[in-house]
Amino acid sequence: MMAMGQFYLFSLVLGTLGSLCVLFTVYWVQHWRGGFGWDGTNLMFNWHPVLMVTGMVVLYGAASLVYRLPQSWVGPKLPWKLLHAVLHLVAFILAVLGLVAVFNFHYHNRISNLYSLHSWLGITAVALFACQWLLGFTIFLLPWASLSLRSLLKPIHVFSGAIILSLSMASVLSGINEKLFFSLKNATAPYSSLPPEACFANITGMLVVAFVGIVLYILLVSSWKRPEPGVLTDRQLRFQLGPGSRPYPVAYMPVASGPSQ
Amino acid sequence: MMAMGQFYLFSLVLGTLGSLCVLFTVYWVQHWRGGFGWDGTNLMFNWHPVLMVTGMVVLYGAASLVYRLPQSWVGPKLPWKLLHAVLHLVAFILAVLGLVAVFNFHYHNRISNLYSLHSWLGITAVALFACQWLLGFTIFLLPWASLSLRSLLKPIHVFSGAIILSLSMASVLSGINEKLFFSLKNATAPYSSLPPEACFANITGMLVVAFVGIVLYILLVSSWKRPEPGVLTDRQLRFQLGPGSRPYPVAYMPVASGPSQ
Repeated sequence: MMAMGQFYLFSLVLGTLGSLCVLFTVYWVQHWRGGFGWDGTNLMFNWHPVLMVTGMVVLYGAASLVYRLPQSWVGPKLPWKLLHAVLHLVAFILAVLGLVAVFNFHYHNRISNLYSLHSWLGITAVALFACQWLLGFTIFLLPWASLSLRSLLKPIHVFSGAIILSLSMASVLSGINEKLFFSLKNATAPYSSLPPEACFANITGMLVVAFVGIVLYILLVSSWKRPEPGVLTDRQLRFQLGPGSRPYPVAYMPVASGPSQ
Repeated sequence: MMAMGQFYLFSLVLGTLGSLCVLFTVYWVQHWRGGFGWDGTNLMFNWHPVLMVTGMVVLYGAASLVYRLPQSWVGPKLPWKLLHAVLHLVAFILAVLGLVAVFNFHYHNRISNLYSLHSWLGITAVALFACQWLLGFTIFLLPWASLSLRSLLKPIHVFSGAIILSLSMASVLSGINEKLFFSLKNATAPYSSLPPEACFANITGMLVVAFVGIVLYILLVSSWKRPEPGVLTDRQLRFQLGPGSRPYPVAYMPVASGPSQ
């Protein structure tokens, strides 16, 4: 059961880091940037970092890992697919609201849209996310695609998801950097003197890096994966037949343990 | 041979993108920022983006893919390991020179070091790169580590390498973004009016994203990999026994083809 303990340890670290990313971003704009509003002013802009970190990084990262939950390894897959799709849809809606916040702020303050590299990265990440969601829905949720087509596209789907998360991370980090240069430009303590706000927001950026790093590790490297039909690993058998657990009747479950992963 | 054609197509795209990343960065600082010098002025700073893009992104990316070359799949592994280590060492030296350029520029112009999130990301990427290189050298090049320890650490080594590349990418992108805000602050055409320089440097950033995306795809998803001892795939057999190729005498090469990858 060591591997299982390790899994729950990772989940704990991930949950903590994800919460800290959101809380730090909220605290930053609440404490140093005047808080929130939906009125076209700076207070409306403040929704932008919070919604982007929450949607494109934290919720997106959590939604990516649905199939890494041992509970998803046995029994029907459809409910987990629905959960994966719905969580990503909520993440996407938060990202769109985050875009509305910044476009509306620009509109009210006659600032150009989409000129900085940060904005190019961010809009690319959101556009790729939309394509990824629609393709995933079409191929993996709708019933028409053959099993062989799905197997062919699955590693590409996982990889594209990881690339979009890396791009979101780059976008969030360049955004925090840019916002600090803007906000502290004429301040008594400029960014270069590293006042408390700058230090706090830099740390927020480093938390985002740590969160994304752990999500990508669990997604791409760890062996916590739902097995392909016909293969049941020792670890999954142990989970399924552990004390107090009720084995699911699944059609393809072999009687003996399959090859160890 | 379709897979082989696909491999050479990817190599061509990768070589082109990598060259464009370097050439675009050189052209940016040469054409719009006054060119190069090693004198503590802005001209010295200009080495910073060029050395970082060349070392931490392009050469680093190329060095990561040494074992994806079909030529490295057969015959002794040591020469390829040495090539992998030496290329990464050169990439690291370029990165250190890139740091010298910016620290020296800061020193001569009384600018603080390491205050921005960009600098935190960059210094973290270079520090992790140093650890990764030393660990890789100790475990995979020096002869003491057992085969089982190496097999255990290999996926972690590959994953850490990918994470460091993503972090370098985030650092380069936030750096380009920051530099454009600095340089165009009091210009007649500010960044927000997207003058030719801004557009060109933004495109340079997007080229870096495309380059890193393709490196990570080849590294993490593609099946172009040196086989584990005892396993020889159809593709490798085809390569080894293709017209005009001279098969290497390797101890563990099975006579018949192994399982297809």
